[in-house]
Amino acid sequence: MNRYNNICEAVQNCDCVPVNDLLDLNSLNYRFNIDSTLVGIIKNPEVVVDLDLYKTPEGKKLFCINVEKKTVTFEDWCKTRQERQNSIDIMLADFRKNQIWHCMKKWRNEQYPIYGSTTESDGMFLTIERCVAEVFGIRTFGVHINGFVKYKDNQGESSSKPAEKGFGSSTSLFQIKMWVAKRSLTKSTYPGMLDQIVAGGISAGEMPFHTLIRECEEEAGIPENIASRAIPCGSIQYINKTENGYQPETQYVYDLELPQDFVPIPVDGEADSFELLDMERLKLRMLSGEYKPNCLCVVVDFMIRHGYITPENEPDYLNIIDSIHRSIPFPGPGSVLRI
Amino acid sequence: MNRYNNICEAVQNCDCVPVNDLLDLNSLNYRFNIDSTLVGIIKNPEVVVDLDLYKTPEGKKLFCINVEKKTVTFEDWCKTRQERQNSIDIMLADFRKNQIWHCMKKWRNEQYPIYGSTTESDGMFLTIERCVAEVFGIRTFGVHINGFVKYKDNQGESSSKPAEKGFGSSTSLFQIKMWVAKRSLTKSTYPGMLDQIVAGGISAGEMPFHTLIRECEEEAGIPENIASRAIPCGSIQYINKTENGYQPETQYVYDLELPQDFVPIPVDGEADSFELLDMERLKLRMLSGEYKPNCLCVVVDFMIRHGYITPENEPDYLNIIDSIHRSIPFPGPGSVLRI
Repeated sequence: MNRYNNICEAVQNCDCVPVNDLLDLNSLNYRFNIDSTLVGIIKNPEVVVDLDLYKTPEGKKLFCINVEKKTVTFEDWCKTRQERQNSIDIMLADFRKNQIWHCMKKWRNEQYPIYGSTTESDGMFLTIERCVAEVFGIRTFGVHINGFVKYKDNQGESSSKPAEKGFGSSTSLFQIKMWVAKRSLTKSTYPGMLDQIVAGGISAGEMPFHTLIRECEEEAGIPENIASRAIPCGSIQYINKTENGYQPETQYVYDLELPQDFVPIPVDGEADSFELLDMERLKLRMLSGEYKPNCLCVVVDFMIRHGYITPENEPDYLNIIDSIHRSIPFPGPGSVLRI
Repeated sequence: MNRYNNICEAVQNCDCVPVNDLLDLNSLNYRFNIDSTLVGIIKNPEVVVDLDLYKTPEGKKLFCINVEKKTVTFEDWCKTRQERQNSIDIMLADFRKNQIWHCMKKWRNEQYPIYGSTTESDGMFLTIERCVAEVFGIRTFGVHINGFVKYKDNQGESSSKPAEKGFGSSTSLFQIKMWVAKRSLTKSTYPGMLDQIVAGGISAGEMPFHTLIRECEEEAGIPENIASRAIPCGSIQYINKTENGYQPETQYVYDLELPQDFVPIPVDGEADSFELLDMERLKLRMLSGEYKPNCLCVVVDFMIRHGYITPENEPDYLNIIDSIHRSIPFPGPGSVLRI
């Protein structure tokens, strides 16, 4: 567990890959292009070798590797969406069976979108099994929900009102506490670390609000009539790195004010337990290194939007905001991409 | 006045220069470097010529122009902060007297910071007269305040509650109206256009909250006891372009809930008048092209943070957020810069 000296260091532990590094042609990175559109960056050279050696059941190469340009593209014969989808599904099933990549152990049976098509009505080139998103370094999408409770000023047991604690400069009649999930100890990623009350990846074809409603019920027993009060408050973006590759991620962020008497319960075993923390304690837990790195960024975004982290109490205010709003050089849903 | 087809188009009218275009070595742009740190981009080739031709009262060249590398730097003799500050102050006074640059007519007597020094305790290389910031394409900083009023659901004259109007998906017991300023018809920039209730540039050495308190009183007659309730909610960034050059700007954003009976009044003549608008009307005014472009972005940020613009009602949700959180490739206050 990393201890952090400050919030900026903590945030940049998640947003640890500058866009320029990602696109650096002098690195080992290979660009994954579909129809001349950059959709991912492959960090691991062994993956490029595996893709180069792979042959379809009919004995054809599926991927064309250009060593000079450092690109990975589909071979010319594989042109339509259906051909590409079928071929990649068959390849990944084969790789899974033969445990070609370590990450195959975490197979999720969940399809993630690869956006960028200008001809398909849903904007997707194809979909791909979630556990290999990092291997291809594609952009992924999720929802994170800040589940919080408001207390009138004299109601909570200890005050976390920013002005009193010197943590912020705002004044408010309320103090806020946030529900924090401890991830299950058996989870394949970041077991036992702190997380939002609810968070989840957005599968291909799903809208963020549907993911939210589904995950609220599954992960924390939040019924739809409460979950639907969640307010969309923007998104955060960062570029992370793991042993498998890159994770350029977009998280849709929601604030959900919960009734004071509501207590979340682990339903599907994703969460081990829940805890209610005031802002000061939350900050200490963030700096102690207990947080899953991207979940920490969501809390930081909350603290910025609600005036707990301010230009006056945080010297790296602008750098922190920059790090959680990284531009990602691959298309997403929507019509316009600019870097 | 531009009419816009949608919010994304409106936002990108402000954020109209991709970072790659700004840094493109194949363009006419020259890089303004201080101590090897990039601090600005000069768009106008005539400006580069003026800087090349300029001689100090002692007859020395002040700037070194490298045509191959397309850089503008201080000449070697001009090394210390004091030397550079004195020299540039004298040069600009001379240019002003002789009306060398058109923008000199808008001389503000306001010093803006150029950040990036790792040896000065305030992080500044030097300061520069506000009206030439665009000419050198340096990064500038301001504060914008969303002055709004909350009404209980049945209290306002027309409902702007998102769920009822189909503009957003959130539900709330309140509806929100926002105070909008019409800029004075005699202002040198964007006369008569719509603006935040209060906004202002941050001078060198000033903290955002001080700018806020000062401008609230000066521009809208908001007394300190009310202005100090403003909550810092983050920042927006974009790269704009004018006839004079580039404007890579950072705006610190504040939300200020005003009492229902408070009415802003123009004090210093910056604002012509004020108007209270619900969210639907605000959106119409934004699309009609009446807004000063960067002020429109501040309203969009407000609408995103408060759930009026949502992933479900805005197909370009992520692109819009990206455009108002552009990374700016020049240092700001704080310790870490990454692009």
